[in-house]
Amino acid sequence: MTAARQLPGYEVAPWELRWRWLDLDALRKTESTFALSNGHIGFRGSFEEGEPRGLPGTYLNGFYERRPLPYAEAGYGYPEDGQTVVNVTDGKIIRLLVEDEPVDMRYGSAPNHERVLDFRSGTLRRHTEWISPTGRQVRITSERLVSFTQRAIGAIHYEVEPLDGPAQLVVQSELLANEPIERETDDPRVAAVLENALVSDFHTGAEYHAALAHHTRRSGLRMAAAMDHEIDAPGDVWTENHTSDDLGRLTVAAEVPRGQKLRLTKYVAYGWSSQRSTQALLSQVNAALAGARLSGWQGLLDEQRAFLDDFWDSADVEIDGDAELQQAVRFALFHVLQAGARGETRAIPAKGLTGPGYDGHAFWDTETFVLPLLTYTVPDAARNALQWRHSTLDKARKRAVQLGQAGAAFPWRSINGEECSGYWPAGTAAFHVNADVADATARYLAATGDKEFEAQYGLELLVETARLWSSLGHHDAHGRFRIDGVTGPDEYTAIVDNNTYTNLMAQRNLREAATRCEMRPELARELGVDEEETARWRDAADRMVVPWDDMLQVHPQSEGFTRHAYWDFAGTPPENYPLLLHYPYFDLYRKQVIKQADLVLAMWLRGDAFTPEQKARNVAYYEPLTVRDSSLSSCIQAVLNAEVGHLELAYDYFAEAALADLHDLYHNVHQGLHIASLAGSWIVAVAGFGGMRDHGGKLTFAPRLPPELGRIAFRMCFAGSRICVTIRRDEVTYQLVRGEPVHTSHHGEAIALKEGEPVTLPIPPAPQHVPPRQPAGRAPARRRPYPVPS
Amino acid sequence: MTAARQLPGYEVAPWELRWRWLDLDALRKTESTFALSNGHIGFRGSFEEGEPRGLPGTYLNGFYERRPLPYAEAGYGYPEDGQTVVNVTDGKIIRLLVEDEPVDMRYGSAPNHERVLDFRSGTLRRHTEWISPTGRQVRITSERLVSFTQRAIGAIHYEVEPLDGPAQLVVQSELLANEPIERETDDPRVAAVLENALVSDFHTGAEYHAALAHHTRRSGLRMAAAMDHEIDAPGDVWTENHTSDDLGRLTVAAEVPRGQKLRLTKYVAYGWSSQRSTQALLSQVNAALAGARLSGWQGLLDEQRAFLDDFWDSADVEIDGDAELQQAVRFALFHVLQAGARGETRAIPAKGLTGPGYDGHAFWDTETFVLPLLTYTVPDAARNALQWRHSTLDKARKRAVQLGQAGAAFPWRSINGEECSGYWPAGTAAFHVNADVADATARYLAATGDKEFEAQYGLELLVETARLWSSLGHHDAHGRFRIDGVTGPDEYTAIVDNNTYTNLMAQRNLREAATRCEMRPELARELGVDEEETARWRDAADRMVVPWDDMLQVHPQSEGFTRHAYWDFAGTPPENYPLLLHYPYFDLYRKQVIKQADLVLAMWLRGDAFTPEQKARNVAYYEPLTVRDSSLSSCIQAVLNAEVGHLELAYDYFAEAALADLHDLYHNVHQGLHIASLAGSWIVAVAGFGGMRDHGGKLTFAPRLPPELGRIAFRMCFAGSRICVTIRRDEVTYQLVRGEPVHTSHHGEAIALKEGEPVTLPIPPAPQHVPPRQPAGRAPARRRPYPVPS
Repeated sequence: MTAARQLPGYEVAPWELRWRWLDLDALRKTESTFALSNGHIGFRGSFEEGEPRGLPGTYLNGFYERRPLPYAEAGYGYPEDGQTVVNVTDGKIIRLLVEDEPVDMRYGSAPNHERVLDFRSGTLRRHTEWISPTGRQVRITSERLVSFTQRAIGAIHYEVEPLDGPAQLVVQSELLANEPIERETDDPRVAAVLENALVSDFHTGAEYHAALAHHTRRSGLRMAAAMDHEIDAPGDVWTENHTSDDLGRLTVAAEVPRGQKLRLTKYVAYGWSSQRSTQALLSQVNAALAGARLSGWQGLLDEQRAFLDDFWDSADVEIDGDAELQQAVRFALFHVLQAGARGETRAIPAKGLTGPGYDGHAFWDTETFVLPLLTYTVPDAARNALQWRHSTLDKARKRAVQLGQAGAAFPWRSINGEECSGYWPAGTAAFHVNADVADATARYLAATGDKEFEAQYGLELLVETARLWSSLGHHDAHGRFRIDGVTGPDEYTAIVDNNTYTNLMAQRNLREAATRCEMRPELARELGVDEEETARWRDAADRMVVPWDDMLQVHPQSEGFTRHAYWDFAGTPPENYPLLLHYPYFDLYRKQVIKQADLVLAMWLRGDAFTPEQKARNVAYYEPLTVRDSSLSSCIQAVLNAEVGHLELAYDYFAEAALADLHDLYHNVHQGLHIASLAGSWIVAVAGFGGMRDHGGKLTFAPRLPPELGRIAFRMCFAGSRICVTIRRDEVTYQLVRGEPVHTSHHGEAIALKEGEPVTLPIPPAPQHVPPRQPAGRAPARRRPYPVPS
Repeated sequence: MTAARQLPGYEVAPWELRWRWLDLDALRKTESTFALSNGHIGFRGSFEEGEPRGLPGTYLNGFYERRPLPYAEAGYGYPEDGQTVVNVTDGKIIRLLVEDEPVDMRYGSAPNHERVLDFRSGTLRRHTEWISPTGRQVRITSERLVSFTQRAIGAIHYEVEPLDGPAQLVVQSELLANEPIERETDDPRVAAVLENALVSDFHTGAEYHAALAHHTRRSGLRMAAAMDHEIDAPGDVWTENHTSDDLGRLTVAAEVPRGQKLRLTKYVAYGWSSQRSTQALLSQVNAALAGARLSGWQGLLDEQRAFLDDFWDSADVEIDGDAELQQAVRFALFHVLQAGARGETRAIPAKGLTGPGYDGHAFWDTETFVLPLLTYTVPDAARNALQWRHSTLDKARKRAVQLGQAGAAFPWRSINGEECSGYWPAGTAAFHVNADVADATARYLAATGDKEFEAQYGLELLVETARLWSSLGHHDAHGRFRIDGVTGPDEYTAIVDNNTYTNLMAQRNLREAATRCEMRPELARELGVDEEETARWRDAADRMVVPWDDMLQVHPQSEGFTRHAYWDFAGTPPENYPLLLHYPYFDLYRKQVIKQADLVLAMWLRGDAFTPEQKARNVAYYEPLTVRDSSLSSCIQAVLNAEVGHLELAYDYFAEAALADLHDLYHNVHQGLHIASLAGSWIVAVAGFGGMRDHGGKLTFAPRLPPELGRIAFRMCFAGSRICVTIRRDEVTYQLVRGEPVHTSHHGEAIALKEGEPVTLPIPPAPQHVPPRQPAGRAPARRRPYPVPS
């Protein structure tokens, strides 16, 4: 069994996340960590009975409200409208009265209470024994899921059992729209909240079924939610169906003897569209309900488990030597799958569908952090995410025109593909998002060989982004290709010339586009690409400026960066982090202080552009400047520290990345999970300790374990084959699980993997460098391996 | 007499501005050009009868309302509140009924109508013969002033004469608060407008007197306005006094025979304060009215003329060969005097008190463009303006702390001294404002030798700004002092390292502070300055980075500037200017396109830091990049073009600067005059064609005329002496009008000026360089001298 900690927290277990305590203050956090989603629909992990609650939320991917973006001083090209994810009709609510007493865990007592998120069943289970203020005892058990296989469907199986004698139980299962929720602080990162966003169009209810239809006031999106139920009770039940504009309610009353149970299965379906009519949406949700009723609760459970079995077979990461990290990595994989599995033609937001943070927007995080994981584990999900980008190409082309550029300029943050960034130096100017999209496209194409995707979507994404770089940069008097006035990944530096990351990623973008166009000339012609254009791209790539500080023998993060003043880390008290809430941008921008891996990120994604010596020197230079006020940093620092031999430090960063949400490192997990950081824990395992690289579509490995761990094993797909890599202290075993042979390399030595022929090779000694230091007070916590529970 | 143009416009005359036509579309513009002000109170030039009207306005210096500054994404240190000048109680209104018909020039006809702004009397005269729709004829004449000598007072002398027989005349003289005014476009430069800003506190009226008191809703400022009258009519008059919250009205009715006149003299007084009570303010305005009544209308006229006689004696610029330019320069001098004469402890806003543009804020324009003129012509006004800056030192010190700096950080834009800029890259980051304040302080001290000002105000201004630079910059690995991440004067480039203008001005600031502290050690000690600190200032100044492009042999405007892409001027259609309304900041910032003189401005103010060859090369480099989308550019380009020998081009820029408002070059004169550009026309005459420089407090001249002009003569004060410089085609005469001898130089040759000993010297030939070109379509109009009216 699992070992309980002393203090309230998640119990450590390999395949589940369990919380035993009734900690009302923690509700908002656990609503995020216990959220269920399939990438299409998201349910936060709030209690069925509706209250107490933290920040309840039900989200539909791509369903947003517009809001005006105000400016003290407006400027050309500033977006006028923002988009905010809407908390839609809540279908999770099942209220309960026990002998006239509403079950509310703020009152009475709960001698037993626990919730469990099961990574293999894909369900959230709840078990509560509750004693009412007047002394009546009931046991409530529930299990819920958001179906990976029937993407419009969520379902809850709910049971109540009187423990101290017969009881009259009244259950109210609801669809509730426009639930009021709390406003947040004026922290700029906390999402704006909209009230009463839904306008009722229709409501209907009969027998065990009810449906509500609404539309949003400003964005004009339409949605429908419907529920149906199965009831199983000893003896007679009395039911009542009531609906009004914002409420659908099925009331079920029954006298239940001690030891027997009232059982309710609730099926909820959602449909939404900017195009389809309310009637069409109502038909759609009722059809989805019919499908779910046909499968039944057990059918949904079985499909869910089968889907996840397949996922874990292709994606699991096993870690020996740190049980908590093992759990955290599986938690991470599970949530990334939830965020991306069935998003299909819609974005994967930074918070998935787990909370309202960042207004529900998607950023470059998706392509750079989430898609590597999906590409190598659930390639169809990666394909879908890239298809979403492609579906926004017209908006991106329009934006490029508005910005005076050719090609496509994808938004910094968006739900529907239009730019929603209200601060251009950290938004519009961060053009690297376009190279990130191209990089993810190229990676997907190389890893899958998906020719159809290339023809329909991939090549156009590569071409339009290459065109952007071609127009954004220019040749200077020495014939070098410069990209001036842009913002790289590090948000504590903005509007710089020749950000090394941006330039190297643009270089890859230009080359990938040229190469793919040359390989498929007829497709290229359809996109209007001729030999002159590919030649220009190649020339720009070949002449790309890559800043270099000859005195320090390091790559400046951008031109001039290493000449800037150092931040006064010693004079910065711990409570002044994150710095952006305590110091003006102007001062952060002009000093050597780094929010998140930027040059170091370039050394991962464009590791082919750096020598090992440069990597070691750059890591040594940038570690003491990087404060990690972003969740996108520790995983990348782990990867590079592992590569240059700082394996213990990499392990510390591994834990930081993997546990960011479980330990609520950023104090905002209640706003939703950090999906990119979760994906980052996979990146550390596979690219960090596995040393996996895929430059130019060539798969290579250079594994090395930190001394604290006994084994890391991971699986991944490549070119339709499935491989497993098992890293031990001194040797690595590569195994082709199934599929065509895979050609790869181990620490530079070419190997071919064939089915039934595992290859075991020794690990060469790690390079020896003095471990770098971090800014005062910003070193990651020294990780002590969490023991395997007894 | 003056020669009329064919098309409606101002008539050219040496000492007045006359407009003969009734052009309703031009009303908003002429309300600005005909505005009267003494720097304390401002009356826009609207008609007495209230309507038709353009954008009526009555402004009190420093009287503003707060408004929240909204941000799509807020950030640390962003100002939460803005300030907007309030259109206060209008005391100009005198409505007239002729036989029951309200006089409204949109109806009936006006066979004769003209308005004249007289630069010597300091009054606005109006003469109208009006025929009512029913055929009744009257002549209305009025003259109004805002008193330079009684600064709380405005007055109007108003006469009506029936021309076609006896008429019943009813005159309504009003105080009108919360007059509704039109909102403007979403041009970011056009000021926000607040409605119903005034809340009534008190109103009273009796006999010919009325007073209203109000306060502003959010800023809590209090004001009182009062009026009193003298009436002179043939026969009986019936009068009525009515007051309510927002209205004070004296009604006068009389039967007036043909050929006789109803005469009304209206005295208006204003008082306002953040501290004083409503009762105190009411007493104050009534006292001011008593003083005005004592002087009487003729007395006010006499005082006004005497004040202006003295001003013209010390400040006049005479121009032979271009009558329109002669008029424009006097118009400019008159309005700059109006903006600065009696501001006293308050700011000189960018629009003076002539309109609501820029929200009524003061910028660095005042110190850099307006104060040179005032320092050398009305030094007391310059002193007062610097005293205003000094009075805001506590706010500036607080702002510096907020920004993590030492010393004082003056606001980019403000009314009360608090930062109101809602876009930090073009606001907070433009730290050069601090060096501009220091430069104006040093100039005033050098030109006046005002030891008392130095002790009380000047040294502290120099010290606190020097401290800012000392903390803002840092030494790099080579020991050079860098100032990174700031914005220079050119608003099409932002957040750059080592803006040459900023660094050179900071260098002067640091040296001036060190020198003055060393000269007055006991004062320095009181300010906490010791030898270590002055040594640090000197070191920073000596090691200051001054960017230099060795390949191009020019000074980059900032580090890296000359490596940036050129703006595509050929592809920029004329309607896309000003560029900031048609292109995103990101693209403007990263390219070689310049809104306004920046490096060229440095070559004027820090001409001592450049060789003549560098100046010529820099002018040749920067002219083709400068689009002059700012009114702060053409005057400076004139000065430098004159210096390097492009005298015809300098003449073109001279006309552009001087006529900017009279020709409405920026299409926004209705929002108020461009006081800095007006002052700039003086700068061109004196520093451009007069070649006057004052580096290090040493006065020098290097005069040269453009071929189109026959003579420029100007007067200025220096060290308490008054001198006159008369430039002719081949020679210059320097004359000490009165005072102690002045040591100066003529084209490098030292001369001493003594009373009664004019010095006449020949002008050496101008340097010969190929005249530079401007961006396509952005050359200044070739100036053809406007003939002297016959």
